[in-house]
Amino acid sequence: MSFINDNFMLQSDTARALYHSHAAKMPIIDYHCHLVPQQIAENIQFRDITQLWLVDGHYGDHYKWRAMRANGVSEEYLTGGTKSAWETFEKWAETVPYTMRNPLYHWTHLELSRVFGIDKLLSPKTAREIFEECNAKLATPEFRGQALIRKFNVEVVCTTDDPADDLRWHKMIAEHPFGTKVIPAWRPDKAMAIENPKAYKAYLIQLGEAAGMEIRSYRDLQEALQKRHDFFAANGCKLSDHGLENFYATSYTGPEIELIFQKVLLGITPNATELEKFRSAFLYDQAIMDADAGWTQQFHIGAIRNNNSKMYERIGPDTGYDAIHDVDVAVPGHRFFDRLTAAGKLTKTILYCLNPKDNAVMMTMAYTYNDGTVPGKMQFGSGWWFLDQEVGMRRQMDSLSALGLFSRFVGMLTDSRSFISYPRHEYFRRILCDVVGRDVETGRLPASELDFIGQMVEDISYNNAKRYFNF
Amino acid sequence: MSFINDNFMLQSDTARALYHSHAAKMPIIDYHCHLVPQQIAENIQFRDITQLWLVDGHYGDHYKWRAMRANGVSEEYLTGGTKSAWETFEKWAETVPYTMRNPLYHWTHLELSRVFGIDKLLSPKTAREIFEECNAKLATPEFRGQALIRKFNVEVVCTTDDPADDLRWHKMIAEHPFGTKVIPAWRPDKAMAIENPKAYKAYLIQLGEAAGMEIRSYRDLQEALQKRHDFFAANGCKLSDHGLENFYATSYTGPEIELIFQKVLLGITPNATELEKFRSAFLYDQAIMDADAGWTQQFHIGAIRNNNSKMYERIGPDTGYDAIHDVDVAVPGHRFFDRLTAAGKLTKTILYCLNPKDNAVMMTMAYTYNDGTVPGKMQFGSGWWFLDQEVGMRRQMDSLSALGLFSRFVGMLTDSRSFISYPRHEYFRRILCDVVGRDVETGRLPASELDFIGQMVEDISYNNAKRYFNF
Amino acid sequence: MSFINDNFMLQSDTARALYHSHAAKMPIIDYHCHLVPQQIAENIQFRDITQLWLVDGHYGDHYKWRAMRANGVSEEYLTGGTKSAWETFEKWAETVPYTMRNPLYHWTHLELSRVFGIDKLLSPKTAREIFEECNAKLATPEFRGQALIRKFNVEVVCTTDDPADDLRWHKMIAEHPFGTKVIPAWRPDKAMAIENPKAYKAYLIQLGEAAGMEIRSYRDLQEALQKRHDFFAANGCKLSDHGLENFYATSYTGPEIELIFQKVLLGITPNATELEKFRSAFLYDQAIMDADAGWTQQFHIGAIRNNNSKMYERIGPDTGYDAIHDVDVAVPGHRFFDRLTAAGKLTKTILYCLNPKDNAVMMTMAYTYNDGTVPGKMQFGSGWWFLDQEVGMRRQMDSLSALGLFSRFVGMLTDSRSFISYPRHEYFRRILCDVVGRDVETGRLPASELDFIGQMVEDISYNNAKRYFNF
Repeated sequence: MSFINDNFMLQSDTARALYHSHAAKMPIIDYHCHLVPQQIAENIQFRDITQLWLVDGHYGDHYKWRAMRANGVSEEYLTGGTKSAWETFEKWAETVPYTMRNPLYHWTHLELSRVFGIDKLLSPKTAREIFEECNAKLATPEFRGQALIRKFNVEVVCTTDDPADDLRWHKMIAEHPFGTKVIPAWRPDKAMAIENPKAYKAYLIQLGEAAGMEIRSYRDLQEALQKRHDFFAANGCKLSDHGLENFYATSYTGPEIELIFQKVLLGITPNATELEKFRSAFLYDQAIMDADAGWTQQFHIGAIRNNNSKMYERIGPDTGYDAIHDVDVAVPGHRFFDRLTAAGKLTKTILYCLNPKDNAVMMTMAYTYNDGTVPGKMQFGSGWWFLDQEVGMRRQMDSLSALGLFSRFVGMLTDSRSFISYPRHEYFRRILCDVVGRDVETGRLPASELDFIGQMVEDISYNNAKRYFNF
Repeated sequence: MSFINDNFMLQSDTARALYHSHAAKMPIIDYHCHLVPQQIAENIQFRDITQLWLVDGHYGDHYKWRAMRANGVSEEYLTGGTKSAWETFEKWAETVPYTMRNPLYHWTHLELSRVFGIDKLLSPKTAREIFEECNAKLATPEFRGQALIRKFNVEVVCTTDDPADDLRWHKMIAEHPFGTKVIPAWRPDKAMAIENPKAYKAYLIQLGEAAGMEIRSYRDLQEALQKRHDFFAANGCKLSDHGLENFYATSYTGPEIELIFQKVLLGITPNATELEKFRSAFLYDQAIMDADAGWTQQFHIGAIRNNNSKMYERIGPDTGYDAIHDVDVAVPGHRFFDRLTAAGKLTKTILYCLNPKDNAVMMTMAYTYNDGTVPGKMQFGSGWWFLDQEVGMRRQMDSLSALGLFSRFVGMLTDSRSFISYPRHEYFRRILCDVVGRDVETGRLPASELDFIGQMVEDISYNNAKRYFNF
Repeated sequence: MSFINDNFMLQSDTARALYHSHAAKMPIIDYHCHLVPQQIAENIQFRDITQLWLVDGHYGDHYKWRAMRANGVSEEYLTGGTKSAWETFEKWAETVPYTMRNPLYHWTHLELSRVFGIDKLLSPKTAREIFEECNAKLATPEFRGQALIRKFNVEVVCTTDDPADDLRWHKMIAEHPFGTKVIPAWRPDKAMAIENPKAYKAYLIQLGEAAGMEIRSYRDLQEALQKRHDFFAANGCKLSDHGLENFYATSYTGPEIELIFQKVLLGITPNATELEKFRSAFLYDQAIMDADAGWTQQFHIGAIRNNNSKMYERIGPDTGYDAIHDVDVAVPGHRFFDRLTAAGKLTKTILYCLNPKDNAVMMTMAYTYNDGTVPGKMQFGSGWWFLDQEVGMRRQMDSLSALGLFSRFVGMLTDSRSFISYPRHEYFRRILCDVVGRDVETGRLPASELDFIGQMVEDISYNNAKRYFNF
């Protein structure tokens, strides 16, 4: 029996029945990911499995990079630019057995199995043949970018885009549809990043050009963002997203914010208080924009980034040097959502946290602001980044269940830059079915209600997201 | 087989044997709850299941309210006052299937089964018949307040009472005993709440009247509280309780506290430092009072309350808008208990925490101050509020076990305002037996010691509380 | 069947096979403990089981003391010095059944079984015979200190030593080898402890004498420490260790540190800022010293100590009044390791945390600084102190696995002052095999790879530490 077999991760008969009869067949809505729109539009053909899996120009899979560095693989194989595709792949193959119990071990073999139909385990012994088989397949049309997405019955993909983006690749995709809807999502992190005035001013020029105006004040900034927000909406956008260390919701006045903005324009680095005030204003104004547009807002809270400054200077962000932060989220988070509630401007919201210590706090925070207008309006999002693995997913599901309505959960997303991470939806669904199946078999859920339970599994796999986002 | 069957939650033979032979038969000591003494004294007859379960004047079950709001039920069905009992109940029945995996799903069916003898699952299909059957039963004498309590073999109930309370309902109950001892417990939160001078001054008048004196200084306050403390003691009180965001144990002087008190009397809102000092003094003085009286003090730490100000203004506190806080408890908590230890004034103490991240900190904190005078003197209390569910209980039991003496645990309490939440004691005991039974069946505990283990289950279910509180 | 039987803690066939064929046979490397070198060198003969287990002069087993105090045993039996060995032992025997579910229950019976060959359970009924049998055996040569260590196939022991220590006991052991290598480890906590100037100055004299110089400046301090560091290295030392509330990595200048040092020499207690700066400098300089020597540095983070000041004054530190702290470790920790990375001075490192809320933060912190030079260079250490029990170990293994390379884990250490705590390595290995065995039996790891998995178990039990520390 192959490792990735029909009943992988499914420990009970009920789990198996739920998965095979209910979860497996549902399409995928991948409502948050980091696919590069140009690569979709141009229907990318990958040179080899190394490009697809490990190193693609400046980017690559930072999960794998961290594992390889920890396994004693030197940097030249990863970001050195001096090693051949095979040499880098070989190092990964050597590392794979050492990833046992890490999600990479499961993801790797799920992807080999589901994408390439390879059921062998990757190791130094099998490295060469797997390398060649993958590369041969990647040279065929069935393994170009769009076909890879289609293979997994993906109905909708939401990318992650800067407000200054002209969305031309999204438009090109819309004009040449390939069966999966590709929608932009609004990620205005750069428009908030006043901590670096020089980079910020350069960004304002870019944003101003996109909006057809000059940005000389905070009010201008909001006007430009509103124009871009409208433009994104016209291009199908229905979600925003913020990557933050914490929520920001201190008190401020309009004139204060204008003053901080002017100082930044003068090249003065804001102090901690000014940063906090600016971010509080910015996030609030963004939330209003989203509410007025009827979008869903997402908050990714709790990463501490670019910690290894030596490597940051050498190879930049998102290269495997980020980590889990520990901050206190309750006070700023509640202030933020309370303000929006008081103003009647709280839109649908998904909270993701990176520190498992915050699961209970974020979950009860979210559920403090449900107002009976939309089922599951305030969501506690699926295990994110470092927590997107079996233990992390189970904890998220248990927190959500114990403190809220599991049945209303909008479920899984890949958050990935890879064209072949859709098996993570399968992984999630298998764990989901295992969790629920165990509950039935242990009498925690009534076996008499299997119809409803099967429906719940389908809802969490697909229907809830479909209804919630209304794509 | 019905959902709530004999072996509900009991996954092993040993668990079943422990439950049926040891746990099930023990009486209940509900040493902390929020039953309304007047409703007990007047032997309340409930109009219908909606009053009992969902909405009772300004109050109701905030667990259910949160779930219903999250399920898209609009506020008018809950606190609007415009919907009929049936209309509100119907919305709850629609919500129930969507609470699968939430404790409400178990509590609801446990209560239907144990209180009403109804083994049907509540859903839109069964809503009408269950509504009618419950209401018919509630109209009979067997379902009045006192009979409901008696039905569950409750030996003692401790209510939660303000120092200004005249305890007349407790006296009336004592004069007309119905088989369950109903004892007041001392909750002086209002006497510490100087953050709102206006409300505080009004409270001081009330308290002064109860104590037969005018309160013009902090010293007067302590004198008045001591009188009321004595009065509570004379009425059988043996426990105090504090609901706090955190412990408070900063340094202060007597004159500082008097000055802060005088400022509050002048209507001046204290600043953060003053608040901290006042609370530190107040809690310390309360702890001395409890120690001198030989009471047990309880600390409920870690809620962040009334977060949704719009709803707070509309419908007040305790309506489902509280959440789990994240604060650092180690430093103030240790300072607090260290001071009391140094003064030789540390009485029996139970710590409850609302944030599961604090389980290990609170548990090791408690066990740092055991002094060998009373077995289990310092207790880590059962899963509280949001944590009063299966995962929360298991974690509390595991933290307590790994870091202390599980066998000395005083066990479960309902913390509830409802006359029919006693099945939560059954729920707790089933989980307790499942935990211990699994340990035996996996060889973590020796099967040869089943006599001692059975005794331990009985102790945690009842005997430990009986001995510890000495009612 | 005895409680501690062949398959104790091993719940599956694969777990049993892994333990019996792979884990059990491996030698022990106990790379961090608190054995007293003099007791090893002098080949201590224990008076009785009470000395070995409960009270040895001013010291004793604070785990047991906490449990006994919680069970209502008065202090005179522990640190009073007035009770006979039997009286104290009897109180422990009374307490043991009440420790069910606490690790003490397992440790006690593992030690009775593995050290004394006693399979009876300890209780008041068996207390007298067990007391006598243990004492009789302890009077024989086979139960002297060195034989006890040899009995468990311990290859290397690293003690914990102050830089001022002359290591004469280590030298004596080296001159009279008994089969286990006993190596010093460097613990410079006292050299950082400027918070108490009087004690610090006394320590500086001691350290200066050891280094053959007078210490009149921070620069002198570093010179003296370097001399001792070299001396330790010459005596085989390869590890340092720091016991800290948190990491310290604020900004400072050399002159600032000298000034703080001079103030301390004048007897002035440093303020919080000065403390933070001094500690930051000290830890950084220590890390450089370790890097230059090629040692491994260890950080034990998150205890809050000596909380019960009344008992501290009476019986001193390490007597059962410490607890788990709650601090935010991400910011100072990342700053610390980032600086070392930037300076090219980050040596092999093991992070231990005492608060389980920090598992994910510390684990991802460690893995942010792997540089591909050494497999498993940055380690997340095994469950420490309060967390050195089944649930704590499983959580540590799960965090490490989900967020890093479990296969590269250097595994267990006792951290103990006792000559008979080596069964904790067995306990760890049984849990390790149970964890991995379950993964195989549930299909999370491929059964086809049992050879590699068996190797991984041997590596975590022994080989990884062997290679990593290179003793």
